[in-house]
Amino acid sequence: MSEYRFLFELALILLSTKLFGLATKKFNMPQVVGALLAGVILGPAVLGVMSETSFITEVAEIGVIVLMFCAGMETDVNELKRSGAASCLIAVAGVVVPIIGGFGVAYFFNKPDMIASDAASSIFLQNIFIGIILTATSVSITVETLKEIGKLKTASGNAILGAAIIDDILGIIALTVITSMADSSVKIGVVLVKIVAFFAVAAVAGFLFYKFYVSWFERSGKGMHRHSIVVFVFCLLMSYIAEEFFGVADITGAFIAGLIVSCTHKEKYVSAKFDTLSYLLLSPVFFASIGLKVELPKMNLTLVTFAVVLTVVAILTKVVGCGIGSLLCKYEMMDSIRIGVGMVSRGEVALIVASKGAAVGLLGSNFLGPVVIVVLITTIITPILLKIVYRDGKHEIQEKTVENGFGQGFERLDDLRRK
Amino acid sequence: MSEYRFLFELALILLSTKLFGLATKKFNMPQVVGALLAGVILGPAVLGVMSETSFITEVAEIGVIVLMFCAGMETDVNELKRSGAASCLIAVAGVVVPIIGGFGVAYFFNKPDMIASDAASSIFLQNIFIGIILTATSVSITVETLKEIGKLKTASGNAILGAAIIDDILGIIALTVITSMADSSVKIGVVLVKIVAFFAVAAVAGFLFYKFYVSWFERSGKGMHRHSIVVFVFCLLMSYIAEEFFGVADITGAFIAGLIVSCTHKEKYVSAKFDTLSYLLLSPVFFASIGLKVELPKMNLTLVTFAVVLTVVAILTKVVGCGIGSLLCKYEMMDSIRIGVGMVSRGEVALIVASKGAAVGLLGSNFLGPVVIVVLITTIITPILLKIVYRDGKHEIQEKTVENGFGQGFERLDDLRRK
Repeated sequence: MSEYRFLFELALILLSTKLFGLATKKFNMPQVVGALLAGVILGPAVLGVMSETSFITEVAEIGVIVLMFCAGMETDVNELKRSGAASCLIAVAGVVVPIIGGFGVAYFFNKPDMIASDAASSIFLQNIFIGIILTATSVSITVETLKEIGKLKTASGNAILGAAIIDDILGIIALTVITSMADSSVKIGVVLVKIVAFFAVAAVAGFLFYKFYVSWFERSGKGMHRHSIVVFVFCLLMSYIAEEFFGVADITGAFIAGLIVSCTHKEKYVSAKFDTLSYLLLSPVFFASIGLKVELPKMNLTLVTFAVVLTVVAILTKVVGCGIGSLLCKYEMMDSIRIGVGMVSRGEVALIVASKGAAVGLLGSNFLGPVVIVVLITTIITPILLKIVYRDGKHEIQEKTVENGFGQGFERLDDLRRK
Repeated sequence: MSEYRFLFELALILLSTKLFGLATKKFNMPQVVGALLAGVILGPAVLGVMSETSFITEVAEIGVIVLMFCAGMETDVNELKRSGAASCLIAVAGVVVPIIGGFGVAYFFNKPDMIASDAASSIFLQNIFIGIILTATSVSITVETLKEIGKLKTASGNAILGAAIIDDILGIIALTVITSMADSSVKIGVVLVKIVAFFAVAAVAGFLFYKFYVSWFERSGKGMHRHSIVVFVFCLLMSYIAEEFFGVADITGAFIAGLIVSCTHKEKYVSAKFDTLSYLLLSPVFFASIGLKVELPKMNLTLVTFAVVLTVVAILTKVVGCGIGSLLCKYEMMDSIRIGVGMVSRGEVALIVASKGAAVGLLGSNFLGPVVIVVLITTIITPILLKIVYRDGKHEIQEKTVENGFGQGFERLDDLRRK
């Protein structure tokens, strides 16, 4: 392969994600669906003209970091705190219900006379693990869709963001617990301490950065190149530290960095710059890279049936789980459905979880194909469903925006307590 | 090395290039000097905390492509055409004089009792090759400096751009001629045909893109994301095609793409977007990557002497060669000096030429160290010298801007003809 081929591949990614994006827009679907499809079509699943290179992987990683960083900057941290209790409940319900659902489907299919597994662990752990794969949430697709349709700053949008961050933490814990059962070198205590330590370090680093940035921004004149660069450095370091030293997802670090920058109230200037960086280079590469990861394996009828059932269960358990969580927090029915739908996408997170499970003997190799199907369908269907549930005219009046009805979940919990 | 280390390295590059840039600015030097030094200090030459990875190489490549693309967009193509004859003469003089100078220095030093060469070719070809290394011009440093001090759109800035493009072509031809002497598989005829073919293809592609873009831009509404993306795709494809199919530098393809976009007169909106992309991510990586390439080898006194002499000759021959070319085209003395100084930087181009020469036996391995010294010093000194020669108060009045005195070189050639 020529040393300059990455220029051609980048051109192809930019062109095809935009063309497919415009095409899906014509059919009233979000552009992000087109961008995902572009990757699937260019990649090994269909045409095979391109596969994931380390260049694409790394630019994509920066892409999803910047995406979550921008989402953080657009979030009002006080409102997020206020809806924190609600987000927790939504996340917990959105983890428990899919584990049960996934376990149920696996319990039925994971038998020698149905699908023979070649994994080393006990069948019980294997079935739990299928459930854990279904807990993964890839919020980036939802963030991009909500941005595109202008609903990121709604009460439901905020609840999704909060719940996704907590979901990520719960996912790490669940993955660690089951891995420690299969692999004795993994210590659940260490993992929990690390997660707590990360939030402590993030709080201190965030406070120091906030103090430094506000005073420096005032001193050095407004809106200069250096401000965007310093903010970007902070975002990259928070992402790196999260992954490298605390085992927390880099996008969680990036989101928290964005939240801290949003507190400075200087974020308008920088966020416009990151928006350009994102749409012109980073996010097309990120969305295409998800599609490029998809390799469709050969599957027999039982595996296909399993894949279809698992996909349906994956969608329903998230909608029902997070939906029930939202209803318990007194969100309106329509908003509860929106929150549930926003958590459906499994994206690259589920693929990473699955590959880790396969490595430690928790997932049979022939189960990887169905997992890919689940990821592909939930990822592509999420933006489509989101557009539908946010469009529903009947409930337009109940739309709660940051400005007027935000943090309602928390206020209602308060009401509940008072009763 | 951790799979997330590139995030840390990117943060380090962004932070250090900015800090060093601000430091050099304090000392009245262009920020690009600081950015170059940041790379040298982080890299194997000094601290060794970072070395060039494929991620850095590829992002840097896109960085220099976008830099030259922006330079193309900012250039007035009609003015460039008008100064074409002058640029040609400047480029030719700027190639011939350094070849002679480099040959002279090598003739004196490249002897068994001075510096024993282990290269396979004849001493005569080896000495010519040292001269050819000195013909390389890395215009990107100059472009960034001129942008920074607001002098890119001057008559001299334009002459530098035009001459650098032609210099690149002449450099390819010179390199091919000498390589074909050392390596019989290289055919000079094929190379010349390819160069001509590239400009023919570029003209046709440019014309088609121009027609498409102007009518589409009008139809689809102004200033949308898709315009920047389509323009970026065009730039990347022109760069890729230049390198891959015609053996011309990718930055030449990018510059021509920029020129074509500038003809559409729709470039203001897109060029602001590329500016953000450039300063926030791409160009810091590019400038740091040049410094990261520098590895200082152990050298004895003779080699150090050779390096110093070669550096002085490298600087003088470009200033004198291009300066004389400019004077012949009736540029003012001060502008001639500016043009000469603008062509001094050898940057990564000379390193590439040298490594190709070493591969085919035209350059002894112990000569690589001195070449690195030449590249490092000429690259760092160019922005410093440029700032000095463009600052000179006495000649401020003679400053020719695009608006009033552009294309003077050509008009004067016309005057000359009429006389």
